[in-house]
Amino acid sequence: MAEPARRRGRGGGGAARRAERTAISIETAKYIERNIPNFEVLTEEALDIIEANAETVLEEIGVNFVDNPAALERWREAGADVQGERVRLPKGLARKLCATAPSQYTQHARNPEKSVVVGGRNLVLAPVYGPPFVRDIEGGRRYATMEDFRKFVKLGYMSKWLHHSGGTVCEPTDVAVNKRHLDMLHAHMTLSDKPFMGSVTAPERAQDSVEMCEILFGKDFVQENTVMTSLININSPMQFDDVMMGALEVYAKNNQAAIISPFIVGGAMAPVSVAGTLTQVLAEVLAGIAYSQLIRPGAPVIMGAFVTSIDMGSGAPTFGTPEAAHITYGAGQLARRLGLPYRSAGSFCGSKLPDAQAAYETSNSLNMGLLAGVNFMLHSCGWLEGGLVSSFEKFVMDADQLGTLHGLAKGVSVDENAQAMDAIREVGPGGHYLGCAHTQANFKDAFWKTDLLDYKPFETWSEEGSKDTVALASERVKFLLDNYKQPSMDPGIAEALAGYVANKKASMPDSFT
Amino acid sequence: MAEPARRRGRGGGGAARRAERTAISIETAKYIERNIPNFEVLTEEALDIIEANAETVLEEIGVNFVDNPAALERWREAGADVQGERVRLPKGLARKLCATAPSQYTQHARNPEKSVVVGGRNLVLAPVYGPPFVRDIEGGRRYATMEDFRKFVKLGYMSKWLHHSGGTVCEPTDVAVNKRHLDMLHAHMTLSDKPFMGSVTAPERAQDSVEMCEILFGKDFVQENTVMTSLININSPMQFDDVMMGALEVYAKNNQAAIISPFIVGGAMAPVSVAGTLTQVLAEVLAGIAYSQLIRPGAPVIMGAFVTSIDMGSGAPTFGTPEAAHITYGAGQLARRLGLPYRSAGSFCGSKLPDAQAAYETSNSLNMGLLAGVNFMLHSCGWLEGGLVSSFEKFVMDADQLGTLHGLAKGVSVDENAQAMDAIREVGPGGHYLGCAHTQANFKDAFWKTDLLDYKPFETWSEEGSKDTVALASERVKFLLDNYKQPSMDPGIAEALAGYVANKKASMPDSFT
Repeated sequence: MAEPARRRGRGGGGAARRAERTAISIETAKYIERNIPNFEVLTEEALDIIEANAETVLEEIGVNFVDNPAALERWREAGADVQGERVRLPKGLARKLCATAPSQYTQHARNPEKSVVVGGRNLVLAPVYGPPFVRDIEGGRRYATMEDFRKFVKLGYMSKWLHHSGGTVCEPTDVAVNKRHLDMLHAHMTLSDKPFMGSVTAPERAQDSVEMCEILFGKDFVQENTVMTSLININSPMQFDDVMMGALEVYAKNNQAAIISPFIVGGAMAPVSVAGTLTQVLAEVLAGIAYSQLIRPGAPVIMGAFVTSIDMGSGAPTFGTPEAAHITYGAGQLARRLGLPYRSAGSFCGSKLPDAQAAYETSNSLNMGLLAGVNFMLHSCGWLEGGLVSSFEKFVMDADQLGTLHGLAKGVSVDENAQAMDAIREVGPGGHYLGCAHTQANFKDAFWKTDLLDYKPFETWSEEGSKDTVALASERVKFLLDNYKQPSMDPGIAEALAGYVANKKASMPDSFT
Repeated sequence: MAEPARRRGRGGGGAARRAERTAISIETAKYIERNIPNFEVLTEEALDIIEANAETVLEEIGVNFVDNPAALERWREAGADVQGERVRLPKGLARKLCATAPSQYTQHARNPEKSVVVGGRNLVLAPVYGPPFVRDIEGGRRYATMEDFRKFVKLGYMSKWLHHSGGTVCEPTDVAVNKRHLDMLHAHMTLSDKPFMGSVTAPERAQDSVEMCEILFGKDFVQENTVMTSLININSPMQFDDVMMGALEVYAKNNQAAIISPFIVGGAMAPVSVAGTLTQVLAEVLAGIAYSQLIRPGAPVIMGAFVTSIDMGSGAPTFGTPEAAHITYGAGQLARRLGLPYRSAGSFCGSKLPDAQAAYETSNSLNMGLLAGVNFMLHSCGWLEGGLVSSFEKFVMDADQLGTLHGLAKGVSVDENAQAMDAIREVGPGGHYLGCAHTQANFKDAFWKTDLLDYKPFETWSEEGSKDTVALASERVKFLLDNYKQPSMDPGIAEALAGYVANKKASMPDSFT
């Protein structure tokens, strides 16, 4: 009779341990507050040269504001030399205008515990943005749908190290282009309680984003606070189109934050050298941020730099390369001298699969992002194939790695407990620390813990099917989605949001362009 | 008649392009000379505390020199307090003795172009050391043999970014324990012309290593120069065994370099805190390096720190973690204050496969190694499964990534060409840089180039079989081994080396313990 009892006992203990290991927590870590220095590759002299050259670019060459007569008029009034669509800025003008932009700002989440402060020594992590395709083990690579989108929002909501729900976590190609922003915002607002991004694909869609936020947060709250951070790309080199500028105008007018970001594949949209690229990046963000301040002085903005290197053989963008790192480190120095929050880096890779190449490239990028002083890291998880694909497995793989950034940023304590002299005395030469008092008191918080990676003995790992990282990640995706619980929302707000989306959709025919 | 000619033309062109792409180069890059700063996580105050605590550890607790009466006598003469095998060092004594160790040294290779300078702002990269198993796609995981060993030496010889042939690139378990060092050294000496490491598994095997070097380099040359850098592990915590110290004595006496290195899984062989671990690491290396200088003042040494974190659930060592990074950065600061070359980091991972986990962990470790100011990086490629396995595929994967460290370390030029103002003027707003004069003049050297990773368009990649990184690496392993050509050697020396090995082997029975 003893045998079955013991077996039950074992089974019960095992189940309890499994339950503990797999207990669902939807805890979200606070955004990273760095307690480590920034890594700086440029000397003061180099920074001076780049800043002077950027001013020369703005004055001599200028930038284009395309199909946007009102913008040209604003520039003229501000003292720029406007010829056709070319805007040339006298030295110092852009930098002077940028001075009204805040050095940091709070983006409020509907759950106040998840609001983020962007700037200073902080780092806010947001997921991948923009891919038209998704990939997972079962379905392979395919066009993204709204159902995929919702899954990514749920995964983001349940990812401890992700502070931000992001924006276009994938492009829901099964919804009309002129309506999908409504479904996307609705998903971020209702399936998560983390901060999110607004639509930038047309000025009126930016306006819809503001109006939906007014329902979610209240009209007064939105006018007095920042509740969205949205991505405004510059058409590098040095061109600002009416769609992006139209969206920026809506957001700035409403005190909503914008990342003003060159999008550069080095050697194609910028010079093939690091210093030349940094010069162009700085000129572009100076012009773009200055323009945001012409719309509304004090509107919150982030200096962005999306810069990759290029494979000169194929023309493909390349990621995790030393040149991308140099630019990311250097742009961080420029942003700090400008006194503005800085966006760069991400889980970048060129690989088609979430394999070793993807992870090498991603780790190179994530580490450089932390050390470069990035304040807002878009694409921090889930990016695959040069940004063409949002990968379900890579999303949870990268999100797990984001925990290492939190750990690194904490820095090193040298308080009495950390000095551990009593432990060294207790253990002595030839001993071991596993059982000593200091280890017992500290082991729970001593080390970063993965939710994903395999540390099992070889034999156990083999018996369990020799799973690689993607297989483990696939299991974790399913586990998270199976255990997802929607955060609660005031029913009146939920109804109003759903009503807004339904009415807007009904007000216009579908358009797929 | 035109058609066949054109086809021939195409074929020839394609073949020529393929030949260029796959042309074998056995070029070896010069060791890295950093033109970027070191990343430092500890304040001066924290460093002072750790240094003071390490002196307290040496004075109050001391270290054990086990089964080594001559060492105890040397310590007594040097002014230490010796009780039994416990050696306590008055404050300042170890540091004073360490002062005679050189801040940098040259390790000569038989090909003088491949000699390396260890120390200063340099970084010398050497392959994985010690695994009893090997793994590749075809054969899976299996005990390593001498044939595997020779393949790794050949791959190391052909790896551009690897400066050093290493030591026990895998443990050749098919050769008797008391004879395998002879075969290993013979392989390094004859199959490569890069610098290498000597045997440390017994003092007499260290002596054999010296004697084989005397054949290879000439007796006088060896006495006047350093031709080996060998790995002396400390039995942390604070214990120095007779085998390792016996090997150290042989090498120091012969002016050959030794890495004096704690081997620590944090929480087991050192306190569970970063500051406590750094204190113990410093105390241990101070004692070990001081001892090397008692043997021969001026003998070249490297301050080593092999430190990993631990998974407190399973007791498994963990790699690429933030805590390991903190220790690696901190130990670099301590080494620089001590004025000694520094060994740490590597292609560390706990993963059983060369998958994404392996690459995340490895990239975290490699990047931190570069930024921490490491001067000698053992294990820089090929490490798998916590060091139990040398992986053929991961060897070439990591070796390719080592190129990114070379690129990063170059730093950023701001000379007139790098400023690229003419390019920005030439292209202007809305243009593109691919064809501009500056790009044409600079693109060949502008970006780091992989020899392995995939940058192809999705369609091409799919048509070619959707290969992941391991599949590409497997092809590269075969390609390199198929194209390996042994570097030439003076026939007299080759004969003498072979004779030495044969005589030594014949002089004693096989022993497998």
